[in-house]
Amino acid sequence: MKHKIKLGLIGLGTVGSKVLDLIFKNKDLIERKIGALIEFSYICDRYKNRFNLINKMFYKNVRFTTDYQEVINSSDVDIVIELIGGRNVAKKIILESLEKNKHVVTANKAVLAENWDEIFSLARRKQKLVYFEASVGAGIPIIQALNEGLAANNISTIIGILNGTCNYILTKMTTEHVSFDLALKEAQRKGFAETNPVFDIRGIDTLHKLVILSSIAWGSKIDIGTVYCEGISNLKIDDIIFAYDEFDYVIKLLGIARRVNNELELQVRPCLISKKHPFSSVENEYNAILLNGDACGEIIFYGKGAGGYPAASAVVSDIIFLSRQVAIDTAGRIPYVNYDPDSKQDYLDINDTYGCYYVRFTTVDKPGVLSQISGILGKHKVSIASVYQKEQLSRYRRGVPILMLTHLTREGAIRNAINEIDKLSIVKSKTVLLKIIF
Amino acid sequence: MKHKIKLGLIGLGTVGSKVLDLIFKNKDLIERKIGALIEFSYICDRYKNRFNLINKMFYKNVRFTTDYQEVINSSDVDIVIELIGGRNVAKKIILESLEKNKHVVTANKAVLAENWDEIFSLARRKQKLVYFEASVGAGIPIIQALNEGLAANNISTIIGILNGTCNYILTKMTTEHVSFDLALKEAQRKGFAETNPVFDIRGIDTLHKLVILSSIAWGSKIDIGTVYCEGISNLKIDDIIFAYDEFDYVIKLLGIARRVNNELELQVRPCLISKKHPFSSVENEYNAILLNGDACGEIIFYGKGAGGYPAASAVVSDIIFLSRQVAIDTAGRIPYVNYDPDSKQDYLDINDTYGCYYVRFTTVDKPGVLSQISGILGKHKVSIASVYQKEQLSRYRRGVPILMLTHLTREGAIRNAINEIDKLSIVKSKTVLLKIIF
Repeated sequence: MKHKIKLGLIGLGTVGSKVLDLIFKNKDLIERKIGALIEFSYICDRYKNRFNLINKMFYKNVRFTTDYQEVINSSDVDIVIELIGGRNVAKKIILESLEKNKHVVTANKAVLAENWDEIFSLARRKQKLVYFEASVGAGIPIIQALNEGLAANNISTIIGILNGTCNYILTKMTTEHVSFDLALKEAQRKGFAETNPVFDIRGIDTLHKLVILSSIAWGSKIDIGTVYCEGISNLKIDDIIFAYDEFDYVIKLLGIARRVNNELELQVRPCLISKKHPFSSVENEYNAILLNGDACGEIIFYGKGAGGYPAASAVVSDIIFLSRQVAIDTAGRIPYVNYDPDSKQDYLDINDTYGCYYVRFTTVDKPGVLSQISGILGKHKVSIASVYQKEQLSRYRRGVPILMLTHLTREGAIRNAINEIDKLSIVKSKTVLLKIIF
Repeated sequence: MKHKIKLGLIGLGTVGSKVLDLIFKNKDLIERKIGALIEFSYICDRYKNRFNLINKMFYKNVRFTTDYQEVINSSDVDIVIELIGGRNVAKKIILESLEKNKHVVTANKAVLAENWDEIFSLARRKQKLVYFEASVGAGIPIIQALNEGLAANNISTIIGILNGTCNYILTKMTTEHVSFDLALKEAQRKGFAETNPVFDIRGIDTLHKLVILSSIAWGSKIDIGTVYCEGISNLKIDDIIFAYDEFDYVIKLLGIARRVNNELELQVRPCLISKKHPFSSVENEYNAILLNGDACGEIIFYGKGAGGYPAASAVVSDIIFLSRQVAIDTAGRIPYVNYDPDSKQDYLDINDTYGCYYVRFTTVDKPGVLSQISGILGKHKVSIASVYQKEQLSRYRRGVPILMLTHLTREGAIRNAINEIDKLSIVKSKTVLLKIIF
């Protein structure tokens, strides 16, 4: 029985500083739950001035360093907490910590999604644990749920609103009818978007989270390159308004993973969601994740998907769970992640997936247009559920919008049809295609 | 390393039979996740004829018995799965299994809620585990979330729609405007209510689940007798309709636990919920649980709260999680439940809690009535937010309904006021008081 668990924290940014705060605040509760004491041996950040923000009174035995090697090489550290973000250095920290027989807690979705195989093969070989609850949905305990609480299920579906930045922007666009650019600026001003928001708005962050959830759910390495990924930066306010006003849908950026006959369908894209579905009321920085299992049925998790404290909730819960096992020296004897490096995963091409779609054509205002378009759709076996032709609006000086919702159709079919339609001279700009998910 | 985990299943009812089905169906997945094989040594039920429903082909080495003592005394059983329901025998099975050094998986909320201290003290002493994910919210992994995924948080609030039967009845009353009695009959016909539904409709089942969640969240034994408990059998269709039509609220049976200055406020009662709150759309047999933690903020879990397969999802996930530890002989070295038998819990009396309320008075149709009622409310410092006086409806031949919503008030104050008002000769029947929660 070990009576004191030694922690090495690397990264004193938004999450790291809140991890310190939370452990300070709830120390009694935390140590009671662990059944042992915890203590920081090292606090590391590349910016020395961040140490000034810490009340050194409370961290008397802590060594402050700007060199992470000191932390991972120390024999005085049981658990390395990697919270620096980014890719290369974070990856090195995780892998080298494992090599040096440390357990790891991380919030780094990019590194996990891109290096699943390497990290969890090494963790298994070294009999060490890597916990990463904060990497998806911040404070929502979804990793553990998938890994353990729902372990008996064959999961068929994972659908998530996984990125707080995008959801904040889309909420703003939906409720205030502002353009993407304005909504993004507002998000940046309020701290909901980073100065360089490209990973969020292009869907890459959602993709990473989807890959992590899928890797756990299906126990295999996911090839990131196979995921269809479309962000929200090209999304037009018109489509948000049309979807809402004419068809009772809201638009959200979703990560979608489905297993159909052992093939995985993986997509990140803005989708239409019925106003009646619980996901439609998930606003601002909130996240929601829907899972469907063969025994549990549909389960939804909802909570704050971003922010220092929600992420710290997950990091510190990981620390508790891990420390309990470190204390009695059982940590790592069972791998946390069920992962078979030899499993082969087949993927479904985006064109072979099925769905209903929202389509907006922009055409000249002439007779026969609708017949030409619907003729081509029919030829490609795309069946139309409803059509809505708006009168020419001022902002459509260059064309008339024609809105359509389709019945269930193969995505390849509708894409082929649109390619053909977009070549017609009656079409004034690129047709918009959005998937309807609920 | 143990290569085969031996299970003894006691109880072949709705849940037990689905546990067998699920393990049969997902055996490969389950054994891969455990890293060892699982096998039933015993299947036990007091009704012999239930064994005929099992395809014996698949259970060649299994001993079928009507005597549970055989199971818990066998050296060939690692985990006893108690799924018989009820109280006395189930309690004996759980305690005796622990005494005989077996781990236990159970779905029995009544036994857990009423014997928390005894069960978890014994489990700790014997270094054995009792898992019970299925006891609350069926397939929703809420026990594990509270116990581990959110362990870093000081939980301030737990609010849940925890009983599928009541929620089915209330959904029926709300959407179809039928009386409680008719809705109950329909629920029984469809299998959503038992022939003897008294535990459900009086709120006892919700109370048991609330006690379990509170015991985990606050690490102490909860005195069941301190919980204010009001069921739904006295709920009138009129109040459901008035709340919905006049004030935009739906009525749900809620379990509410709040920690205010180290005192616990525990209530089970029908409450008004704004149509805008996610809980308002939790219908039929679905459950939802809201937790508020100091770091994670508000988190909501939603899913099927009843049924054989959802419960089996939780039972089998428990079996997996437990078996992984049995396989490497670490099970029980860390207690699953953080429970301090010496902790003292203080409780807040219902009259000292604060809330906003819906009140329906039924009075004679005379001038001065409203002034008399509001005078008494004012004297008790109950502040009225809105008043709605309906014209006399046919069903109110014996009085006129006056509806009020209050501002935040102490429950004792409004109860005292109502007691005084109900003694007036202008009041024709007992005043209805319902709490507004969201």
